[in-house]
Amino acid sequence: MRSPIDFYFDFSSPYGYFASTRIDELAARYDRDVEWHPFLLGVVYKSTGSAPMPQVPMKGPYALRDMVRTARFHGIEFRVPDAFPIPTQSAARAMLWVQSQRGDDLAITFAKALFRAYFVDNRNIGDPTLVSQVGAELGLDPTALHEGLNSMAVKDQLRAETDLAMAKGVFGSPYVIVDGEPFWGFDRFDQVEACLRDGKV
Amino acid sequence: MRSPIDFYFDFSSPYGYFASTRIDELAARYDRDVEWHPFLLGVVYKSTGSAPMPQVPMKGPYALRDMVRTARFHGIEFRVPDAFPIPTQSAARAMLWVQSQRGDDLAITFAKALFRAYFVDNRNIGDPTLVSQVGAELGLDPTALHEGLNSMAVKDQLRAETDLAMAKGVFGSPYVIVDGEPFWGFDRFDQVEACLRDGKV
Repeated sequence: MRSPIDFYFDFSSPYGYFASTRIDELAARYDRDVEWHPFLLGVVYKSTGSAPMPQVPMKGPYALRDMVRTARFHGIEFRVPDAFPIPTQSAARAMLWVQSQRGDDLAITFAKALFRAYFVDNRNIGDPTLVSQVGAELGLDPTALHEGLNSMAVKDQLRAETDLAMAKGVFGSPYVIVDGEPFWGFDRFDQVEACLRDGKV
Repeated sequence: MRSPIDFYFDFSSPYGYFASTRIDELAARYDRDVEWHPFLLGVVYKSTGSAPMPQVPMKGPYALRDMVRTARFHGIEFRVPDAFPIPTQSAARAMLWVQSQRGDDLAITFAKALFRAYFVDNRNIGDPTLVSQVGAELGLDPTALHEGLNSMAVKDQLRAETDLAMAKGVFGSPYVIVDGEPFWGFDRFDQVEACLRDGKV
């Protein structure tokens, strides 16, 4: 198996969610693993002077329409959550904690469950209690999870993971890196696939 | 023939150029005409608080890479011009003047020649003299064109066209509207095609 591909996402990013429903299957078709990297887009935006699309004049109304249409176009279950966008520290920290305690596979299953809770079932994963509940539904101990996501070690790790993502040039969600080649946006998955297939675009 | 589709672009936009190489053929396949609307993205950016991608921290280096790769992926001749981005008043005004004097077909041919001069042949169409030269290569009178693009009437028209574009929600380039449905970006042409084919996405 060749090098894993890197998948960066923020839990409040609809296009990150769309990517999360396709990335593993896409990579597997070309005999690749995927390393999932939650990070805080809000921290990156402070550095680049950007804002979430829904808050930008004119772009905002378009963005909401584009999300719904893009999901429909690709056959992905989706609704714009009532609370949107939301802070994603708790979700990201919880995923990192599960990864450190139980490994990658369960962490990725958990990340998919969090995305689904938010973008399909309209549950506010900005709330750490809700995050622990979603974990409990997968058989995780909600008390341990709640303590874990509040631990200083995990907070420090998320800060470092976000700094590392920025150092690698990540400025949006989703962001995929294949053998050093960066791709921003779910709408670059056609080029990601070409890169996986041909070794270049 | 059904309603024409609206195609908004700025002459300094690489993705607008990519769109310009495909839009007529795409529309014709679904028995549609295209109305080409040059506008000034810089004026829109002032209103939305945006900046050209190459000038945004982190996004800038990525954008230059993405343009080159996207052109290659779609088989479109392209190079990043030495002067980029550039002011596009002269090119846009010249196109409007040709349209008013000689009609849509020649104006569109001229717009394609301007895009090609800039993004293939690295000629700086920010310079009004160069714009008139490109017109002369199509058999237009360069002196009349130069006077035309400097006329108050054309200046007023471009200002009004840009205001009208903004009033219709246009905030980026390319921007396509099909029967009221808006699409931002060359990477939405798959959805534009679905909309033309099925009447919805």
